[in-house]
Amino acid sequence: MNLRRVHIIGTGLLGTSIGLALRNLDIEVRLSDRDPGRLHLASEMGAGKAWREEDALPQADLLVLCVPPGRVAAELKRAQQLELALTYSDVASIKAQPQLEAEKLGVDVTEFVGGHPIAGRERSGPGNARADLFVGRPWVLTPTERTGTQAVAAATWLATSCGAHVVQLSPEEHDAALGLLSHLPQALATLLASRLLDAPSGWLEMVGQGFRDVTRIADSDPELWAEIAGGNIDNLVPELRRLSADLADLAEQLAAESTAVTEGPRGRTSNAFRQAVARGNQGRERLPGKHGARPQLYVSVPVVVADEPGELARLLTEVGDAAINVEDLSLEHSPGARLGLCELLVRPDDVERLQVVLRERGWSVHVSP
Amino acid sequence: MNLRRVHIIGTGLLGTSIGLALRNLDIEVRLSDRDPGRLHLASEMGAGKAWREEDALPQADLLVLCVPPGRVAAELKRAQQLELALTYSDVASIKAQPQLEAEKLGVDVTEFVGGHPIAGRERSGPGNARADLFVGRPWVLTPTERTGTQAVAAATWLATSCGAHVVQLSPEEHDAALGLLSHLPQALATLLASRLLDAPSGWLEMVGQGFRDVTRIADSDPELWAEIAGGNIDNLVPELRRLSADLADLAEQLAAESTAVTEGPRGRTSNAFRQAVARGNQGRERLPGKHGARPQLYVSVPVVVADEPGELARLLTEVGDAAINVEDLSLEHSPGARLGLCELLVRPDDVERLQVVLRERGWSVHVSP
Repeated sequence: MNLRRVHIIGTGLLGTSIGLALRNLDIEVRLSDRDPGRLHLASEMGAGKAWREEDALPQADLLVLCVPPGRVAAELKRAQQLELALTYSDVASIKAQPQLEAEKLGVDVTEFVGGHPIAGRERSGPGNARADLFVGRPWVLTPTERTGTQAVAAATWLATSCGAHVVQLSPEEHDAALGLLSHLPQALATLLASRLLDAPSGWLEMVGQGFRDVTRIADSDPELWAEIAGGNIDNLVPELRRLSADLADLAEQLAAESTAVTEGPRGRTSNAFRQAVARGNQGRERLPGKHGARPQLYVSVPVVVADEPGELARLLTEVGDAAINVEDLSLEHSPGARLGLCELLVRPDDVERLQVVLRERGWSVHVSP
Repeated sequence: MNLRRVHIIGTGLLGTSIGLALRNLDIEVRLSDRDPGRLHLASEMGAGKAWREEDALPQADLLVLCVPPGRVAAELKRAQQLELALTYSDVASIKAQPQLEAEKLGVDVTEFVGGHPIAGRERSGPGNARADLFVGRPWVLTPTERTGTQAVAAATWLATSCGAHVVQLSPEEHDAALGLLSHLPQALATLLASRLLDAPSGWLEMVGQGFRDVTRIADSDPELWAEIAGGNIDNLVPELRRLSADLADLAEQLAAESTAVTEGPRGRTSNAFRQAVARGNQGRERLPGKHGARPQLYVSVPVVVADEPGELARLLTEVGDAAINVEDLSLEHSPGARLGLCELLVRPDDVERLQVVLRERGWSVHVSP
């Protein structure tokens, strides 16, 4: 199957990333969005052509709804009434409730299959989109017994065109899995981050990388999560209760050790915590591709840069003079520090030459982490 | 104060990184470790000279114990008996218990001040050490009323020589803070990762980046954590109980919504989860600098940049010509895309001028997301 024309409603991170991926394959992409600024940026980034309802264009082969979960059914209904496409899919992170709502609204569900690419970034919006967002990722499709084969074929083509691999599950099993794998972690990160609200301000600068990693997704959008959690309450509640009990158990075991265990030659150690961490190690071992699900395309070269106007430009000018392309870059420094660390991501072939060139010119270049 | 000679016991990640930082300043560094292979690697990496007990060398100005928390007191006692140094410090992540043990063992605690650099990496061992590991990071010192001024001065010199800034706290307050900021997150990551042990194997490939981030530190060493948790039980137990209660509360609120709330136009949404995520957002806002700088101090200006060598340098040169300092920067593009988006973080005062300057020179500047 080869589709020629795809319509994307919603040019946030996922919609724009899908557009970029399809445009790289020269597929015709139409974009629409309620927000004209977002639509303009997505279009300028090359994700497709902004589409207005008054444009009289032929039907798309596939329309992808990249809107919050609570809007999927209504937007689907409207798109079908306008006959915008032959088949429909979505990217929402809950599946059973939108499916049920679509059926209630009288949508022709033979033309629709639910979809959920398991990919995302901590930052949203079209500005953070990337064509390779889905490469090597799972893309769940959730057909029901009423779903037509054309819809499944079209959504499968979409997922594989974006570089993802398709996993088929029922909407209900999808939601159960995501309750554990996505919605529970969100709740944990959120509740841990909330604990900072009571922390003495003098403590805050002691927050290290571990806390930051565990709470990164606590930056997520409350409105979006009100819909996701609200649409998956039946799976989420038992997960929350189970983890609450696990925490309480660990607390009781530690408390018991505190009074019962005599101190050894290496101070007071906790067998309960040792066993818990060992079990966590084992759990992580089950993850596919633990050290980066994505193939490592680039290598990081850390360079020390003085915190002054023009220093970073000088660095990048010298990299550019050597005709080395910087694929990505991050800059780290702290208020008041005289130095920052700039990590240049370059192709593996370029690493050695980059290190030589920069050292010749007096930069302090470190070994890749 | 300027020290000339530092002795490091324990050439893991932290010990080797300290050695590298000091060698960059031409300080004489002696290294010792029970494990000859690790010692050799650290020495070969340039972290200092491997030291044997039979080497008759003058006393070091400062000896830094980079050993697990349960070994700090005994190693300190032994080092003092050998008169290896004039002053002593350590880098263990709990402080009250090693201090107490040292006092019990009859260590001369006037010569010792506890230290804890809040830095680390997910990977341990000398091979992952880096001289800049501590740059811009806090380094906690925990003097007591018995600590001598020489020890504090030496450890302060060490921290600042490594690029860190010193925070002084009592050992007890340090441990209370780290109970929340480090030991509780470890328990959460660990217990969440353990839940994978019961998950159907078909679910595992649906694990996304969020789950991976939340559980990254679940890869930590069980032995080390048996010592850390065992040495901080009194602070950790109430933290575990509190978070257990928070999870149970959220579960009960969601369960109540499930039966009580009528469905709105956007499906079933959860007010409880919305409020929880919003509180988590607020908690995260208190963190100093997601990228090491304080983000609320800076505004992001996104600029479209062609994916060619030299383009980014040209952009930053023009920013530098306008004497605007870029506080942080991130570059996003995907392999194959013709354009990337560069987000320049600048002071709010500079935003308008930056937009004008760049637009005059033909750059496509977007409104901050």
